[in-house]
Amino acid sequence: MKKIAIFGAGRSTHYLFSYLNRLIADGHALTVKVYDNSEDNLNYQLHDLPHISSHPIDVGSALAVQHAIMGCDIAVSMLPPALHMNVARFCIEHGKHLATASYVSPEMQALHHEALINGLVFINELGLDPGIDHLSAMQTLDRLRAQGAEILGFESFCGGLICEDSVRDNPWKYKFTWNPRNVVLAGQAGMAVYRHHGHLKCIPYNTLFSRYDTYDIPGYGLFEAYANRDSLGYERAYRLEGVPTLYRGTLRKAGFCDAWQTLVRLGMTDNQTQLKIPGLTGLGFLEIFLPDSGSSPAERLRNLTGASDSSIEAIRWLGLMDPTPLPLCEGSPADILQALLQQRWAMQPGDRDLVAMLHEFRYRLDGKEKTLRSWMTVEGKDQRKTAMSRTVGLPLAMGVRLLAEDRIKGKGVMIPVEAQWYEPILGWLEEEGIRFGEAEMD
Amino acid sequence: MKKIAIFGAGRSTHYLFSYLNRLIADGHALTVKVYDNSEDNLNYQLHDLPHISSHPIDVGSALAVQHAIMGCDIAVSMLPPALHMNVARFCIEHGKHLATASYVSPEMQALHHEALINGLVFINELGLDPGIDHLSAMQTLDRLRAQGAEILGFESFCGGLICEDSVRDNPWKYKFTWNPRNVVLAGQAGMAVYRHHGHLKCIPYNTLFSRYDTYDIPGYGLFEAYANRDSLGYERAYRLEGVPTLYRGTLRKAGFCDAWQTLVRLGMTDNQTQLKIPGLTGLGFLEIFLPDSGSSPAERLRNLTGASDSSIEAIRWLGLMDPTPLPLCEGSPADILQALLQQRWAMQPGDRDLVAMLHEFRYRLDGKEKTLRSWMTVEGKDQRKTAMSRTVGLPLAMGVRLLAEDRIKGKGVMIPVEAQWYEPILGWLEEEGIRFGEAEMD
Repeated sequence: MKKIAIFGAGRSTHYLFSYLNRLIADGHALTVKVYDNSEDNLNYQLHDLPHISSHPIDVGSALAVQHAIMGCDIAVSMLPPALHMNVARFCIEHGKHLATASYVSPEMQALHHEALINGLVFINELGLDPGIDHLSAMQTLDRLRAQGAEILGFESFCGGLICEDSVRDNPWKYKFTWNPRNVVLAGQAGMAVYRHHGHLKCIPYNTLFSRYDTYDIPGYGLFEAYANRDSLGYERAYRLEGVPTLYRGTLRKAGFCDAWQTLVRLGMTDNQTQLKIPGLTGLGFLEIFLPDSGSSPAERLRNLTGASDSSIEAIRWLGLMDPTPLPLCEGSPADILQALLQQRWAMQPGDRDLVAMLHEFRYRLDGKEKTLRSWMTVEGKDQRKTAMSRTVGLPLAMGVRLLAEDRIKGKGVMIPVEAQWYEPILGWLEEEGIRFGEAEMD
Repeated sequence: MKKIAIFGAGRSTHYLFSYLNRLIADGHALTVKVYDNSEDNLNYQLHDLPHISSHPIDVGSALAVQHAIMGCDIAVSMLPPALHMNVARFCIEHGKHLATASYVSPEMQALHHEALINGLVFINELGLDPGIDHLSAMQTLDRLRAQGAEILGFESFCGGLICEDSVRDNPWKYKFTWNPRNVVLAGQAGMAVYRHHGHLKCIPYNTLFSRYDTYDIPGYGLFEAYANRDSLGYERAYRLEGVPTLYRGTLRKAGFCDAWQTLVRLGMTDNQTQLKIPGLTGLGFLEIFLPDSGSSPAERLRNLTGASDSSIEAIRWLGLMDPTPLPLCEGSPADILQALLQQRWAMQPGDRDLVAMLHEFRYRLDGKEKTLRSWMTVEGKDQRKTAMSRTVGLPLAMGVRLLAEDRIKGKGVMIPVEAQWYEPILGWLEEEGIRFGEAEMD
């Protein structure tokens, strides 16, 4: 009997719980306890999962977390990343395995040696992105390399999006299905860095959203991909050292990037400057960023930013040319914009989210250069059974299953880039209806 | 006999010392001691000033600074701003007046009450900009208000530049005459905020250098002015609350702003991302920021940024299209660019710097709207007797003279916006050959 302690029952946890609940129902020797500050969260996510027990505790309290960890074999943290380390340190102290869907922070990486000598697996980045991207990319890269291919390029894209039928009248083809803050501040933490045909390339924030590539995903139409911060971060983990082209990006539906670039160029995503303008309207907010001169706001917007008609219409659709009061009149432009977007891009009952991932592999085999593309799309069912929750929660649940079945070799802080992770998990994901399409291009 | 202790003998201190030396020679009852870490600095700035004594001490040492302050009546800090507070706190403790040419920091402002109850004057912002801008703007504003004018707009610009004969072949018409770091990172600390015809306006960094106004200064040709960070910061101090137009900017010679905007758009001024590229050349550095595609670097630069021919030539002149190794190959793009600029924009023997300041006052008088422009230009004589040193050092020396002559009413932390400062100092500056031209426009 393996005992699992899961911390956090917020957004994107439903499938983590329901998969483990099903394993228990099918006779797997597991117990699962879920800990969260909020009884509402626990009830919402667990009410129809009879094999999982619900434990309201203060997950910020060291004592409460320590007590829960002492009673388990494997800890899972779905808490905000800042709270992972509290869980991780008690896992070291009490000799428990740990699983998260979050990026390996420097603090987490610093526990590698202690985890190793204590015989513990600390698996991280086992969600969607990071997570399924590692699993699917490594499976294909290893397969190509086993065939004798020389890898010439690897590009990888992911987006948390929304189904077309939920955004019929929305020119952005976007709603918030994930952390709004990250969307509004995307790209501001430093330049995008990647490699193209052997050359290091940087893209600054001020042109990031104007330098996208477009990709067609069968059945889902045209997507735009803008560069992620550091495309070279996984060069070593993927064994792609020296590969001429490495690029990671974020997917949006066609039309988003040019319109967002217009907001960036205006200055509306600035998070350094504090404003306080009682009674601020959408148009008043826009006017702050437009030069004064006789013509209409749309005309001045076009003159200042070079925005296309469709970008101007997308901005008008947000209410930025209306004299309607904004929900927030104080804070940085990014704060004020985010509050508006949280109204305009809010999921409505019946809305269904969409997750899309796409990889492109360029390689040389038998003297010929080839391009292979693989892609995955997952549609949400409702506001609890979201595609995001399914693609974040299932890989993590399956990773916990591997740990519970003692199938993982090696110890320490790791990410799932080896066959011992990707083979079983991608197989199980396929059983759940999550699979990649694949096509040779050219 | 009033005893003056001056901390710091670095750049821009020469005229501060020579003016006080002359006062003593003319029989003023003063002693002046100058303290600096560097004997070289002291010798360079003081060797021909027999009435001023030179004291090498560790100006970072609390004990040494305290000892010097105990022996004076008025302390002057020409140290880097981070070291002012050490001096200021001992001035409070031992009951001494203080003068600086630096912006009032929040820490300095916090000493206001203590300075007040101890009967001390802590005068700050008494250099060029801030300094002469306050003096000259307030003199004109007070004169117009005394005539019964209603102020409708105030715009103010300043630049530390270089004489035309020192930049004949330099398309930027610019060299470093002041802190290079501030020039490379200018505009990155937050959006420019100003008011135009009653409307609050913001300009983000990504378009800051493309939104300049141009001004002609008689005898010096065309200047470009881009917006400074917070134009509303002096609204209250200048008694301009509610005035419809308030704008402060930085002056460059014509051609600079478009070319600098091109560097910004490329990402070369980014200070967040760390690069390390052994053997990096000028062209290699440029290529990092250009998309790959068949055409020449100049052509791709034009396509990416929309740069004009003259901006492209300015960038070529920096060596960014040459395969010549750069002086620095590691650090942020801003670090690497700065190292290159410090070669290309270095003052040479015989070069003379130029300081330019311009104010524009819009006002209503007797039912008519009028525009008054005033301007000042000061040319350097050589690398010690710079225009920057003259315009920073003379107002400060004259402020010290006012303190020594007990002519200042009021106590506490202050900036020189009252007639008791601007009347005598602008009069004395005129005796030194520093005067404002003035013209009614329209």
